[in-house]
Amino acid sequence: MKGISVKKSEDFSRWYTELLQKAELADIRYNIKGFVPYRAWASISIKRMYDKYEKCLEKKGHMPLIMPTLIPERNFLLEADHVEGFSPQVFWVTHGGDKKLEERLALRPTSETALYQMYSLWIRSYNDLPFKRYVPGQVFRYEGGDTRAFFRAREFHWIESHDVFATEEEARRQVVEDMETTQEMLEDEFAIPMIFFQRPEWDKFAGAVHTYAADALMDSGRVLQLPSTHLLGQNFSKPFNVTFMDENNEEKYGWITCYGPAISRIYGAMIALLGDDQGLVLPWDLAPIQIVIIPIYRADTKELVLKKVKELSELIEILIDDVYIKLDDRDYVSPGEKFNEWELKGVPLRIELGPKDIENDQIVAVNRITGEKMRVKQAELNDFIENYSSKFTKQLKEKYSIQFESQVEVTKTIDEVKKAIGENKIACTGFCSIDLDGENCAEIIEKEVKAFVRGKRVDKESHKFEKCVVCDKPAHETVYIARSY
Amino acid sequence: MKGISVKKSEDFSRWYTELLQKAELADIRYNIKGFVPYRAWASISIKRMYDKYEKCLEKKGHMPLIMPTLIPERNFLLEADHVEGFSPQVFWVTHGGDKKLEERLALRPTSETALYQMYSLWIRSYNDLPFKRYVPGQVFRYEGGDTRAFFRAREFHWIESHDVFATEEEARRQVVEDMETTQEMLEDEFAIPMIFFQRPEWDKFAGAVHTYAADALMDSGRVLQLPSTHLLGQNFSKPFNVTFMDENNEEKYGWITCYGPAISRIYGAMIALLGDDQGLVLPWDLAPIQIVIIPIYRADTKELVLKKVKELSELIEILIDDVYIKLDDRDYVSPGEKFNEWELKGVPLRIELGPKDIENDQIVAVNRITGEKMRVKQAELNDFIENYSSKFTKQLKEKYSIQFESQVEVTKTIDEVKKAIGENKIACTGFCSIDLDGENCAEIIEKEVKAFVRGKRVDKESHKFEKCVVCDKPAHETVYIARSY
Repeated sequence: MKGISVKKSEDFSRWYTELLQKAELADIRYNIKGFVPYRAWASISIKRMYDKYEKCLEKKGHMPLIMPTLIPERNFLLEADHVEGFSPQVFWVTHGGDKKLEERLALRPTSETALYQMYSLWIRSYNDLPFKRYVPGQVFRYEGGDTRAFFRAREFHWIESHDVFATEEEARRQVVEDMETTQEMLEDEFAIPMIFFQRPEWDKFAGAVHTYAADALMDSGRVLQLPSTHLLGQNFSKPFNVTFMDENNEEKYGWITCYGPAISRIYGAMIALLGDDQGLVLPWDLAPIQIVIIPIYRADTKELVLKKVKELSELIEILIDDVYIKLDDRDYVSPGEKFNEWELKGVPLRIELGPKDIENDQIVAVNRITGEKMRVKQAELNDFIENYSSKFTKQLKEKYSIQFESQVEVTKTIDEVKKAIGENKIACTGFCSIDLDGENCAEIIEKEVKAFVRGKRVDKESHKFEKCVVCDKPAHETVYIARSY
Repeated sequence: MKGISVKKSEDFSRWYTELLQKAELADIRYNIKGFVPYRAWASISIKRMYDKYEKCLEKKGHMPLIMPTLIPERNFLLEADHVEGFSPQVFWVTHGGDKKLEERLALRPTSETALYQMYSLWIRSYNDLPFKRYVPGQVFRYEGGDTRAFFRAREFHWIESHDVFATEEEARRQVVEDMETTQEMLEDEFAIPMIFFQRPEWDKFAGAVHTYAADALMDSGRVLQLPSTHLLGQNFSKPFNVTFMDENNEEKYGWITCYGPAISRIYGAMIALLGDDQGLVLPWDLAPIQIVIIPIYRADTKELVLKKVKELSELIEILIDDVYIKLDDRDYVSPGEKFNEWELKGVPLRIELGPKDIENDQIVAVNRITGEKMRVKQAELNDFIENYSSKFTKQLKEKYSIQFESQVEVTKTIDEVKKAIGENKIACTGFCSIDLDGENCAEIIEKEVKAFVRGKRVDKESHKFEKCVVCDKPAHETVYIARSY
């Protein structure tokens, strides 16, 4: 069977696995757990996502760096929280050929400990600040538990930006800029609704002062952590000696932020959220093929129709800039099978052309989101495609846009939290503290409700509570509790 | 001292090392041998080189794949020659956290043994052929001996394309296409003169039927191996079971080729070859900044000049598409220091503007290749820049173009070979055989002359010899002997 055999709403997990295989996105048969080849259809989109993200970071003053994949163990040991957080997850290189290496080398799980020793050499004075760089590449984490292609992998593809400032205030402003970047990319380009939380102390990046993370709102009330940005303060600049001479020629420690959009994970969230029972649905810019043209003919009309679709395909390529168009004239596949195949692969616009259409100087256009069929006069085709392509991603975003508030249930007891989570909602409730004092209460929730304290909203909070939902102490914070992928 | 303190012709090695550091291209102080961070100035160019190469491969029918960085040891053992060739060079991952892994994992030194097991699953019938894919990424080789940033590293950045065909003839045609691609990229885009050799049997890719490699012609008669393309035949399709059903529904083994342009190495060759005593010289498209504008003023003209250069910079950005322009208005650096700095960094066009120029409605333009100063009327600036930018890379290519024949000395005895090599020439001579039979003679040359048999020319050969320069047996081949980097 070529199509997906199960409805997304009935068995998401199987739907996703079939989508990966049948739309030729990734192959989970590679023989290392958590390492997955991305096939051409996914690789093309992922390359475009990188391109968009990198251009956005460059516009905001970042420059690229290409960094070594390996980090010496001694670097790794310099920041205590970082070591503790990442050590269980590090893949270690111990041998070169048949020789044992003098020092173990970490496959980078993240690049702070590689980068900051270089920053220490590169940054000299306040004239060098702000120093904003991004590193595109893959990272490796020996994570326990289940893996799932794109979503949760032991090798994933991301960009990490690492910025150094003269003052704490500028660093805090960068964190805000990173959140804005996330919103521009995820919502406007990738059609993924999301909301930012300040993570509780026990759930922040190892070595950070604060972590701010985007949770994507998936269907059924679950969330998926997407890019997070971290105020590292001077936690790393001190052990790695990242200093600068200020205007008064005094040596000062830099203030550092880092930000890590995991492109492959965002791709996973995107295909999972936007896909439907027919298969993939992709934003216009990310679809490897944006328009597919399918000829409809019988033996006696074959020659005429094939000639016309060829002309049509060439015409569109001339009229419209930067469009990826495919004429599917395979004669060993039926039109119906072609419809299914390109729907499965998420091509945004299908154009059909048969003898009747040729007579009437028209084409039939089919919208991948709605399935709507439109008859378009050939003379109006240019305008139609321009208009269609400029609105497609917005249409997709609106269809899948989940209003955060509509997912939220206000709760005051653990039973109410449990009930809300059971109904696929996100629970909003009072909480004693997101400092380490609150960790016990969070553990109780995790155990009893099987859901997680995601933290406090970064944008405006309208709910207020008097008591912590667990310990009855005064509620210093309003937090959100959700199941996560 | 900010400039390079030694002439390139006097001490190439020191010149290159200073260039890396002073133009901020790479930092060799990273604390793993052979692993080098690429700084922003190099990373920007390298990203553009990837972009050009990938677009060219896509135009010729390749699609991208993103492949795991790790390969299980069992895959690695499947092709005997490949194991023998690469085993001493493999970095092995043995632990995840504090757990010993069940199987050792290779940091990919090249991806055949990861890819072809997937190709075996993905390719079904002749309708899937030709199957052309490229994998961008980095590879790792635990090489002995000296390392040099970009030129010879233990982690380097490349693209590998792996193509499967139904027939040997098509595979051989792909090898020719790969050589054409190399020429288009290296000569036309990167201004690097080169020539293709079929490598001798003892110097081919481990597992290949034949290897064809481009040798870049560096100054002083040395060559540097750049991209090579390999006819793998059915050497890998058999152990990895890469088969397809042909038109008659019979199962056949595919014919495979692979091609590996090492982008970081090409970058190294480019900066080494094109650079001069002032520093870097970069092709127009690859320069992170293409035009730098430098204001020339005293206290009384500062305001006027700064206003005018700002207008000029904005005007150029409006007039010319896709130009990277920098207005260097730092007031704590003198114009002379700015000239040196941007020459060091290889900015193709410098524009100077002072009060006299403003009076005369002109600017001063300085060519990075020749140092020529040109006065250009503001009204003609647009045409001037369009013309200058379109010719710059060609001008560079012509300046550094080395005619292969002019480097070659025809030789008939080992003494003549030795003399030619001593005079920084490439020796052309008769050779018994580039099959394994000739390996002994090649070893004698290597020992006595300290130079290598690069193989036989792929293009037209006009020289003919009767006897092997070493063993006096009949010369089946005309080969070229050169020192190499």
